[in-house]
Amino acid sequence: MAARPVQHAKREQPPTEQDRCYVSVSVERFQQDGNTQADDLIAQEVPVALIYNGISHVVMMASPSDLEDFAVGFSLSEGIIEQVAEVYDIVVQYDPENLLAGVEVHLSIAAQRQMELKKRRRNLTGRTGCGLCGAESLQEVMRPVGHVEAQPLVEGQAVEAAVAALAKHQPLQAMTGAFHGAAWCDGQGNILQLREDIGRHNALDKLLGYLRRSEIELNTGFVLVSSRASYEMVYKSSRCGVATLVAVSAPTALALKMAQEAGLNLIGFARPGRHVVYHRATEE
Amino acid sequence: MAARPVQHAKREQPPTEQDRCYVSVSVERFQQDGNTQADDLIAQEVPVALIYNGISHVVMMASPSDLEDFAVGFSLSEGIIEQVAEVYDIVVQYDPENLLAGVEVHLSIAAQRQMELKKRRRNLTGRTGCGLCGAESLQEVMRPVGHVEAQPLVEGQAVEAAVAALAKHQPLQAMTGAFHGAAWCDGQGNILQLREDIGRHNALDKLLGYLRRSEIELNTGFVLVSSRASYEMVYKSSRCGVATLVAVSAPTALALKMAQEAGLNLIGFARPGRHVVYHRATEE
Repeated sequence: MAARPVQHAKREQPPTEQDRCYVSVSVERFQQDGNTQADDLIAQEVPVALIYNGISHVVMMASPSDLEDFAVGFSLSEGIIEQVAEVYDIVVQYDPENLLAGVEVHLSIAAQRQMELKKRRRNLTGRTGCGLCGAESLQEVMRPVGHVEAQPLVEGQAVEAAVAALAKHQPLQAMTGAFHGAAWCDGQGNILQLREDIGRHNALDKLLGYLRRSEIELNTGFVLVSSRASYEMVYKSSRCGVATLVAVSAPTALALKMAQEAGLNLIGFARPGRHVVYHRATEE
Repeated sequence: MAARPVQHAKREQPPTEQDRCYVSVSVERFQQDGNTQADDLIAQEVPVALIYNGISHVVMMASPSDLEDFAVGFSLSEGIIEQVAEVYDIVVQYDPENLLAGVEVHLSIAAQRQMELKKRRRNLTGRTGCGLCGAESLQEVMRPVGHVEAQPLVEGQAVEAAVAALAKHQPLQAMTGAFHGAAWCDGQGNILQLREDIGRHNALDKLLGYLRRSEIELNTGFVLVSSRASYEMVYKSSRCGVATLVAVSAPTALALKMAQEAGLNLIGFARPGRHVVYHRATEE
């Protein structure tokens, strides 16, 4: 048995949200000059259930932090709600001694939205699904994307600045190497807020939830994600009114098509000293 | 509009499976010495529906190659079938002029398995789900993991050799930077086979499908994935009889727990010159 949980020293304070997101294990490090025993921090990955007005809708594997932001962001980006105000209350429940048993996030939402969700679910009677929020036939997959208010492309120097600052805003990634980050940056590339999660969609949903809950003006800045830009990343961003998405890694062809349809600026391979503009929403 | 599809020159031969997995677009490259127009290859991302005995079960976004391997691997790793022989026939259908409309993979499976799948789906009446193959309540998530036949840990030098050779076995990744790879390596670290996909779970399912369809002996080699090792990667590997999983990036705590339960060797952060042993299934 190479790795086993290491007991934390007893502490007076309850663990912070960030503390919940990793554990320490003992491992064997192989290096060319020989093996050594060491302690290592690895990411927690816990099932998080979203429960709307008492009805469990979906379970996702996620990092157990910023779960209110996550719940609101997911609900908006998947079209379960249209406005933050349609969420009346959020209660997060879990057993602190047994996080792996899962976290329940209970949302109280507007009756109208609940009725629409019920109808959507009734249409799926007897079906299950995977990867695309329950889609099980090709007709269900290609959801129409919203159109965002097109904005001029962000300056290259702002992308540069945000990329250069990204790592120091990702403490969980620095500790474990297992986290994605989604950052909100102003027009000069200053990172104003960042959310982390083991899943890239979750990190983005957490950020989108934060932005919409805080009523941040989304026209002038941009979202920077540490991952690739798949179509779901573009879909979620445009649904929430983000005008520019910058990804550290590659976009897919479908993400580009969706960015063109949505009027969203799409930048990929954002690395120190270079990046690639895949879609420019306005003519200069 | 920064990017638009570029027409390929007409060719005599129909495109290969690999050709289907990327497209060429024109982009603007930002570099510190100025912007340039360029062509760029980006990954296709298409909805792939798995249809069992005429009933559509699930749609996943995937790269449209090796879809027979994918269908068999997914069916095995998700427990829809127990043996490759329970798949009688596979037919892949798509419109070559409109790949984004989706690919249908029709599987004819044994009546017993179809009945079990129907029963499983009936239990989910009126539910939808996301991320975890339709799981919508916490009770559904933690599926018991199989136990693999524990094998001694692979030699560090073999991991080294496979990691060093990985990039040159990933042509789609080299072209686009958007693909994950899953490789089957022998005990000396020679890469014998590799599958690529935009999704890490899909790349693994494609490889597992290939391995089981080819009746490869899984005890002596190992699987190397270009991604992180989340719990689903460990779950899928152990269900298909893989004894050792090596990941280029980090494992999660749940993946480690599952590897311990399954008796699977788990190695992470496999990079040139170093890697970390998270679980050793047998005492030396």
